Amino acid sequence: MYSKEIQNLINEFSQFPGIGPKTAQRFVFYLLRKDSRGREKFIIDLKKLNNIFSCSVCGNFSDKKICFICQDKNRLTSKIIIVAEPQDLIAIERTGEYKGLYHILGGLIDTVRDFGPEKLKIGDLFKRLSSSQIKEVIFALNSTIEGESTVLYIVNKIKKDEILSQSIKVTKIARGLPLGAEIEYADEVTLGEALKDRKAI
Amino acid sequence: MYSKEIQNLINEFSQFPGIGPKTAQRFVFYLLRKDSRGREKFIIDLKKLNNIFSCSVCGNFSDKKICFICQDKNRLTSKIIIVAEPQDLIAIERTGEYKGLYHILGGLIDTVRDFGPEKLKIGDLFKRLSSSQIKEVIFALNSTIEGESTVLYIVNKIKKDEILSQSIKVTKIARGLPLGAEIEYADEVTLGEALKDRKAI
Repeated sequence: MYSKEIQNLINEFSQFPGIGPKTAQRFVFYLLRKDSRGREKFIIDLKKLNNIFSCSVCGNFSDKKICFICQDKNRLTSKIIIVAEPQDLIAIERTGEYKGLYHILGGLIDTVRDFGPEKLKIGDLFKRLSSSQIKEVIFALNSTIEGESTVLYIVNKIKKDEILSQSIKVTKIARGLPLGAEIEYADEVTLGEALKDRKAI
Repeated sequence: MYSKEIQNLINEFSQFPGIGPKTAQRFVFYLLRKDSRGREKFIIDLKKLNNIFSCSVCGNFSDKKICFICQDKNRLTSKIIIVAEPQDLIAIERTGEYKGLYHILGGLIDTVRDFGPEKLKIGDLFKRLSSSQIKEVIFALNSTIEGESTVLYIVNKIKKDEILSQSIKVTKIARGLPLGAEIEYADEVTLGEALKDRKAI
């Protein structure tokens, strides 16, 4: 029905996260309505992604070999937050509440999809933990089965290490009611944990 | 927070229809996870959009100057469906119920956004109507205020034309309950029109 130029691009956009063929089609028509100059700018910006690397220390995307956080001398080197993806790091940075380091795993253990711990940057993490002054490992992974299994896997590995298990405190970010949530609709696990972790006011 | 390469592309994707900054961010991370070869293929496909033109007859996107429908000698030249956008043409073609011609307006009259009839290919439409054997004009525009105003505007113009008003029958696609719709939740206008247009079974 479509010429192959259009169809190929619809197929490419259909691979984007959360995008089905209908939206992919809308994207292509959007680009067709732009003139070739507008598309050229988009293409130039796409090409610039080749200048983006994975930070060799934490795994964050960066235009330098070592990202701006790992380069920053003012960050606390005693704390490290473990996240799954770079966008999780960005979300935490936006809170302005944290001045320590990060380690990006590059995913979460997902046994259903056969995505095991060997695919994550866990080896790199332990190299960092063994050769630094890190005192606290803070997990900030999704509250999902995959997130919880990944926490468990890494915590077990830390506990089995004689030195690390002594020197490092392991924590995870609190579970509770998000801003604007209604108690009536909260699930029992969240509400139960929010109750256990209640804070003096 | 992001390097400018990433931020620029997030801004570009945020302009895509229905895409906010969060999804735009996911798109960029998706592209970063592809390797540069994968991105290169995407860029090549994007560049090929420069080979796509507006059909000089109906306004459909095409890799030829005249699109495959307008070139097709087997299409009925007595009927023309008026649609707003090329994707509407595709939706109608998919039904397999229509073998006539099309005319793409390139939008709908939207007085709120100051998008007037002069921005649509209405002049071209009347040139086509005047110089052809078209016997029926079928409107297939969205069931919205914009769609209805556009129908009204064009119908009035046809009625004012002494020759066209005599030679051309004007229709619009039926309004009714879509497949799977529940009567209980149908709006009164739709249900009222579906009742008026009831068909013998």
